Amino acid sequence: MKFTEEMFATHMRSITGSAIREIFKLLGRPGMISFAGGNPSTSALEPEVISEISAEVLAKYGATLLQYGATDGFGPFRESAAEFLRTAQVNCTAETLLPVQGGSQAFDLLLKALINPGDVILCESPTFLGAIQAMREYNAKLVAMPTDDQGVIVEAAEELIKRHHPKMMYVIPTFQNPTGITLSLERRKALAALAEKYGVVIAEDDPYRDLRYSGEALPPIQSFDTEGWVVYMSSFSKYVAPGLRLGAAAVNNPTLLRKMVIGKQSADVHSPLLVQAIVDAYLRKGLMPGHLKRICGDYKLQLDAMLDGFKWFPEGTKHTVPEGGLFVWAELPEGADGMRVFNAAVEAGVAFVPGTHFYPDGGHLNTMRLNFSMSDIPTIQTGMERLGGVIAKELAR
Amino acid sequence: MKFTEEMFATHMRSITGSAIREIFKLLGRPGMISFAGGNPSTSALEPEVISEISAEVLAKYGATLLQYGATDGFGPFRESAAEFLRTAQVNCTAETLLPVQGGSQAFDLLLKALINPGDVILCESPTFLGAIQAMREYNAKLVAMPTDDQGVIVEAAEELIKRHHPKMMYVIPTFQNPTGITLSLERRKALAALAEKYGVVIAEDDPYRDLRYSGEALPPIQSFDTEGWVVYMSSFSKYVAPGLRLGAAAVNNPTLLRKMVIGKQSADVHSPLLVQAIVDAYLRKGLMPGHLKRICGDYKLQLDAMLDGFKWFPEGTKHTVPEGGLFVWAELPEGADGMRVFNAAVEAGVAFVPGTHFYPDGGHLNTMRLNFSMSDIPTIQTGMERLGGVIAKELAR
Repeated sequence: MKFTEEMFATHMRSITGSAIREIFKLLGRPGMISFAGGNPSTSALEPEVISEISAEVLAKYGATLLQYGATDGFGPFRESAAEFLRTAQVNCTAETLLPVQGGSQAFDLLLKALINPGDVILCESPTFLGAIQAMREYNAKLVAMPTDDQGVIVEAAEELIKRHHPKMMYVIPTFQNPTGITLSLERRKALAALAEKYGVVIAEDDPYRDLRYSGEALPPIQSFDTEGWVVYMSSFSKYVAPGLRLGAAAVNNPTLLRKMVIGKQSADVHSPLLVQAIVDAYLRKGLMPGHLKRICGDYKLQLDAMLDGFKWFPEGTKHTVPEGGLFVWAELPEGADGMRVFNAAVEAGVAFVPGTHFYPDGGHLNTMRLNFSMSDIPTIQTGMERLGGVIAKELAR
Repeated sequence: MKFTEEMFATHMRSITGSAIREIFKLLGRPGMISFAGGNPSTSALEPEVISEISAEVLAKYGATLLQYGATDGFGPFRESAAEFLRTAQVNCTAETLLPVQGGSQAFDLLLKALINPGDVILCESPTFLGAIQAMREYNAKLVAMPTDDQGVIVEAAEELIKRHHPKMMYVIPTFQNPTGITLSLERRKALAALAEKYGVVIAEDDPYRDLRYSGEALPPIQSFDTEGWVVYMSSFSKYVAPGLRLGAAAVNNPTLLRKMVIGKQSADVHSPLLVQAIVDAYLRKGLMPGHLKRICGDYKLQLDAMLDGFKWFPEGTKHTVPEGGLFVWAELPEGADGMRVFNAAVEAGVAFVPGTHFYPDGGHLNTMRLNFSMSDIPTIQTGMERLGGVIAKELAR
């Protein structure tokens, strides 16, 4: 018998994951300037430090790190990670902290615990495309919340809650991916109140929080939640190393935490103990504050160079001015076709991600996401100038 | 609003994962002899070796290991892992090999790709309880296949295929968990033929294959499959270190592989590169054959001690005589209550897993799974003698 498309689970049939994959293939071309990824700068990664720590923890814990561990995590890491999150005003303890394979797994386990096919999830629009794919894999119905330059508009979100009775709201509150926008303090409080009032779980995805280059740090939505409706998802991908695949979720509702642990049991039993021990030691050695200071210093200059580079873009281009994170969002004048711009840009040797991919319903062809963390300043300047030229030419067609 | 049980996804509501969890809590009691786990022996783990290799690969690959990697895996590891599986007669190449977080994740991704709620999966009964939980989380309908001392009875499996039209068959062919039984060569061929004839995906879970202490190695079911119906799932947990959480799936159907990669993208983006590089170097250094030889030598003596220990069990006890793996399966005389035995045994300072937990439909209270890898020979002797005494007392009630 032949294997046919009908063999797949219904919700997996339409998911091809191809658009972005095709883009990343193009990045291998020689001389290509990439504003397309979301990776940390190579200079932000510390292989020597990690190597030393790896030897230290294997000497300290020995075979324990190579044996099976508990699904709910390696004790010392749960402690140090909870302490780290508390510096960000996250309300958590070692007991409410779940180590995960990056923020992605936290969200995946939350979806697995809660979502029945057809359940509604409110999300920002545009939002992280990995999250869109994850929600689709659980057959959730995505409803876009209106946003402005302060993030989600609370009154509109409340209307949508009344109309759609969502089970979950997915929000990236700080230096949002893809827009770079930060949810204001008042709105953080208000969203926490909405969650409690209507019984909606908020998945607060906050992996960029400590990449702040200006302005004041804000407490998370989770810090205003008293009943356990907000799950805070953090990650060490942007702070230490994405290749290690380690994140942490603060889950203050014990029943929900338990269901996520059960989901993780079947998914991968536990996160690698060596990795948990490495990041634990990194935190305990007090390396994080100095490291963040150094990389934020570099990223700030790169962000400034990119913002300055909009001088090469045609009049009528709008863009965000983020206070941190890895992305700037641009809107070309109405009628500009981002896919045509994208193809011409790649020909000219500069890549980005067309904004349309970040909208659950597509459209918005005049938008683009630009990453600055992976290019040095002269490269950012060259890339923005090239891109500006390509856009001008396209608009003149 | 209060968070209620109804908030959870339907398929997660009834899964509490508690039975075994409670057992493992008991193992912490001082003096407890544990035949309950499935862990490698501590002496089989090599923290010094892993530490040296970790330093080597971080020196060799530098920041590359800390950056984001491809979801379909770290190139060198895909190559070396495919070569390793080919020595087990698995039909695979680097391109058809997917690195995963232990065999558990391979199975989870396969379920995610294929299973709609209500789809039927044929499985051995008893079978691995982690797999039972995973299948339940996808709301699959489990149908037990009759087995004997050669594994799955093919004619009976074919009847069940005709009656239930299963989408998948889950089989642990070598030193099965929990029974220790190995599927015969003829039946391996026959199951591959059934898969092709009826269009059933076989999930071949083979993590114990190279822990063979007597007899001849057999080719996997997958080696007899020419159309990509059999997914072969291996793991380095039992061979190198479970704490590293690394496994490999050979998926020869490219469409199915692609869907599993998409599922992994959302689940955890990719497996930690440091871990993939460590196991890759372990394989390339040629450490595996000598290591397996050493640990198999030790495990053989432990298995022999356990088999010998049945002399302390009451007459009428049956048990398997595995040629490898980590488990022996025992059936007490009919009417013996394994749960009562379990409670009394724990009081007497020896633990095992009551066999009922491995049956999708429960029952079979007179069965027990005994692990020998985690105890040295005197401990196995003491434990079996204690256990025999407890059982005799229970039977005499």
